[in-house]
Amino acid sequence: MTIRRLWRNARLATLAGTDWGLIEQGAIVTEGEHIAWVGPESALPATRGATEEHDLGGALLTPGLVDCHTHLVYGGRRADEAEMRLNGASYESIARAGGGILSTVRATRAASEAELFDQAAARAQTLMDQGVTTLEIKSGYGLTLEDEARCLRVARRLGQERLLSVRTTFLGAHALPPEYQGRADDYISAVCDWLPQLHAQELVDAVDVFCETIGFTPAQTRRVFEAARTLQLPVKLHAEQLSDQGGAALAASYGALSCDHLEHLSPAGIAAMKTNATAAVLLPGAFYMLREARLPPIAALREAGVPMAVATDHNPGTSPALSLPLMAHMACTLFRLTPLEAVRGITVHAAKALGLHDRGTLAVGQRADFAVWALEHPNELTYWFGHNPCRRVVVAAQERST
Amino acid sequence: MTIRRLWRNARLATLAGTDWGLIEQGAIVTEGEHIAWVGPESALPATRGATEEHDLGGALLTPGLVDCHTHLVYGGRRADEAEMRLNGASYESIARAGGGILSTVRATRAASEAELFDQAAARAQTLMDQGVTTLEIKSGYGLTLEDEARCLRVARRLGQERLLSVRTTFLGAHALPPEYQGRADDYISAVCDWLPQLHAQELVDAVDVFCETIGFTPAQTRRVFEAARTLQLPVKLHAEQLSDQGGAALAASYGALSCDHLEHLSPAGIAAMKTNATAAVLLPGAFYMLREARLPPIAALREAGVPMAVATDHNPGTSPALSLPLMAHMACTLFRLTPLEAVRGITVHAAKALGLHDRGTLAVGQRADFAVWALEHPNELTYWFGHNPCRRVVVAAQERST
Ligand SMILES: [Zn+2]
Ligand SMILES: [Zn+2]
Repeated sequence: MTIRRLWRNARLATLAGTDWGLIEQGAIVTEGEHIAWVGPESALPATRGATEEHDLGGALLTPGLVDCHTHLVYGGRRADEAEMRLNGASYESIARAGGGILSTVRATRAASEAELFDQAAARAQTLMDQGVTTLEIKSGYGLTLEDEARCLRVARRLGQERLLSVRTTFLGAHALPPEYQGRADDYISAVCDWLPQLHAQELVDAVDVFCETIGFTPAQTRRVFEAARTLQLPVKLHAEQLSDQGGAALAASYGALSCDHLEHLSPAGIAAMKTNATAAVLLPGAFYMLREARLPPIAALREAGVPMAVATDHNPGTSPALSLPLMAHMACTLFRLTPLEAVRGITVHAAKALGLHDRGTLAVGQRADFAVWALEHPNELTYWFGHNPCRRVVVAAQERST
Repeated sequence: MTIRRLWRNARLATLAGTDWGLIEQGAIVTEGEHIAWVGPESALPATRGATEEHDLGGALLTPGLVDCHTHLVYGGRRADEAEMRLNGASYESIARAGGGILSTVRATRAASEAELFDQAAARAQTLMDQGVTTLEIKSGYGLTLEDEARCLRVARRLGQERLLSVRTTFLGAHALPPEYQGRADDYISAVCDWLPQLHAQELVDAVDVFCETIGFTPAQTRRVFEAARTLQLPVKLHAEQLSDQGGAALAASYGALSCDHLEHLSPAGIAAMKTNATAAVLLPGAFYMLREARLPPIAALREAGVPMAVATDHNPGTSPALSLPLMAHMACTLFRLTPLEAVRGITVHAAKALGLHDRGTLAVGQRADFAVWALEHPNELTYWFGHNPCRRVVVAAQERST
């Protein structure tokens, strides 16, 4: 029998239309994992008897947050390297001391699957404590078939054993592993070989590439995208972060779900994203950490109507961020998104960037994923900063204590 | 009888010397409110029998944090105004809609003392949850004798009724109240009149002025400082935030505890601060919110040996920040402090900026104010960002659950 639950006495921010969609003294009825009714309590149909009733004490309730770009599964510890850099060490001396992304690759390969799981689970818990109910996780620190599979299995298990939704992304083309130095095309061939094997193990929801001067070329990106297309897997791209590689237009031509970073995105890239309904994923945490000066073209994206998502880009090198609301704050402060755009960016537009249309708003038929906040209005999510105002998290109509 | 407590099985970061002062498997003995012994557990004197024993489970223990610059007591709500601004409203239209600092003055005057207390207590609790054990609170939103007194009484009561230390600062010269428009010198005369009355009520630990083109002139600042000197009250200054007014040198010539903000600080100002042992208080939260481009002269302050503190500047307009560790992170990321400098900036140097020499390190004779962290090393305080790794707070040897 489907459990029917009533969630009442809340200020709702439904985000279902073009504004906040505020409903004072609102209520939601859930049936099973989905929303069956939403509106003001005064309009609650009398026939809607519920098995369980939850009084939210007048608190603000929003859709559960969606973090649509993370590199959450990795081994090792990079805080000492970060300290060395702030103490003035050069990149060369850090590399000589064994730092940089390849140190994470080494540590990830050396870690057991249980260790990787425990560390990623703690980070996922921290993000969930601040309202996240859906989490994208990329591989990309294994860079061998078995190590990439291990990381993707950890991500899958997080979604199965923890009460949240996980979407996995294969990012074998994240960095060139040491054993392939000078043979990037050979490595891309390996990545394209691994993909169907990982897909057969049901470990891959999407495929990503780091297309950059310090990553892979557009031609190499295209080869990975072709391999994904063969398997009918959706693609996305780390594009135009440090330079304009034309990656966004390339990805859009493959119907990419999203292009991510985009500080150097061109008008042609925006036009291609618009045409192909590709979302823009903004990553202000990395922008902040790297002290970038060049802003993504927010006004042009807004003008073109490209949906803008905001994510943590959680990773141990350039964005050890553990709060999605803080990323929304930075999207407003640093990128000048409006508070409504930023909050849509961590809910409905982030869901869209993952190809998910069943979450991110409070509307009939949507998943019953909620976050409850000690705030009066959702615009406070991008006003106060540094603390955690999240008080309750509900995933698929099940309460998770935070 | 003095209670003797043993705090054991901790990784200590004493900050007592010129480095982190790490002690693995460390222990602290407290007697009453102070530290009686600190060192490795293996060296714990056998005679040190304790009334109570606390096992810290191997966690990292640092001195309690000191937030040495906040405007924590105010009424009203500025999130809507912040949203209007991000939505593109001009400063004029916001002012017409009743926004800006004077809206906080109106709301503060309209609020009851109980309302002001409850709101400030909630904010103080949030800061304490992230490790703060000593908090400076400025007046400056009342701008009448009675309203300034009310705010300072609220601050005092916070220190008496909550388990933390509060230092009060009279900042009557924060903004020109509407009833004094065009009569700034008359307002400064009033401020100088109020000071002895507030001092007689034991509400004033220090005196501050906002010296700026949009605040008060150096000549007006000097008048307030003279009034403070008459009462032997220490002074400090909001100096050189938006322009170089020569405020730092002026304040230093009065033996100021600290000069705060300092983005436009001159070499002459640095030299004067050095000569007079005046601390520099850096406020990266306001820098971030205002998207400032000009950095405080960190390298020159470091070179001169001026102690650098870091604070939240918590206020409803330019820094609604509710995490002192995040300010340390921003001090590293945006201002390029080293992690050690930033952590000293929120402990021992912040205490120094308040004229307090009995806290900020773990050493015999210091107050037993501790913060316990779910971190391996204190450099992680400036690495991860957005979450709260603080697990326990101890004030004057009394545990506060967080
Ligand atoms: Zn990324
Ligand atoms: Zn201030």
